[in-house]
Amino acid sequence: MLLEATLEQYLHEHIPLSKAMGLRVEVASQERVLLGCPLEPNLNHRGTGFGGSIASIATLAGWSWLWILMRDKSIAAKLVVRKSTIDYIASVDSDFTAELRPPPQEAISHFWDTFERRGSARIELKVEVLCRGEEAAHFDGTFVAIRS
Amino acid sequence: MLLEATLEQYLHEHIPLSKAMGLRVEVASQERVLLGCPLEPNLNHRGTGFGGSIASIATLAGWSWLWILMRDKSIAAKLVVRKSTIDYIASVDSDFTAELRPPPQEAISHFWDTFERRGSARIELKVEVLCRGEEAAHFDGTFVAIRS
Repeated sequence: MLLEATLEQYLHEHIPLSKAMGLRVEVASQERVLLGCPLEPNLNHRGTGFGGSIASIATLAGWSWLWILMRDKSIAAKLVVRKSTIDYIASVDSDFTAELRPPPQEAISHFWDTFERRGSARIELKVEVLCRGEEAAHFDGTFVAIRS
Repeated sequence: MLLEATLEQYLHEHIPLSKAMGLRVEVASQERVLLGCPLEPNLNHRGTGFGGSIASIATLAGWSWLWILMRDKSIAAKLVVRKSTIDYIASVDSDFTAELRPPPQEAISHFWDTFERRGSARIELKVEVLCRGEEAAHFDGTFVAIRS
């Protein structure tokens, strides 16, 4: 099974809201995570994308990248979001995506050094929410991995 | 119809994710907004509350307070969240609530002054997400009202 399908099934089974949002995993790799949602289940009262849905897809993109990072090394860890900030830049009036590009290599190396030493580490991840090719929201999240 | 029931029906009808979350409006007034959610539809992969659900209920609490503020003055306005930060303090392992206490009176006066002058204004709102009486997350959001 492709990693995209494995991850999508995992999210739908374990995070019911991701299924209610119609979340799709389009790309799942250490180099890029791309998640997508249809607009309809994520509408707000103005007929545009609900802020909570946008925060959710961005949080899931960050979480998914860290999940892939750990999975590729066969490390069992608890992965949680500790803090996040989101700027809503433009209304979402169609299907939307959340795209994560990995942090700088030094940040990843630092994360692994700390994780090896302490059994837990945090990493800052940035996610762009896009609609019709334009940035609709920018998300900065701090995620933590704790060895199981 | 009580304002709580009116608001809950409005949210469920216009924001399908709020219905998927099982959102209840427990208190809806300018002095206090209290929203609640059952844990089950908001679970994550660890059997605790999904960060996206927690961000969503907090966003809805802020939005609801501004909706009540405008409704009490019979002002038609577009209400949007512009930016938010959330700190996840403790895991949610049961039903949870989001509680908003109004900002200082000076902030509300400043909001109205600006709104009257410009037809739009922003306000900073704080929301506490609670589980079993303990703070599980703290949310700071900037909301904007634009006269319709």
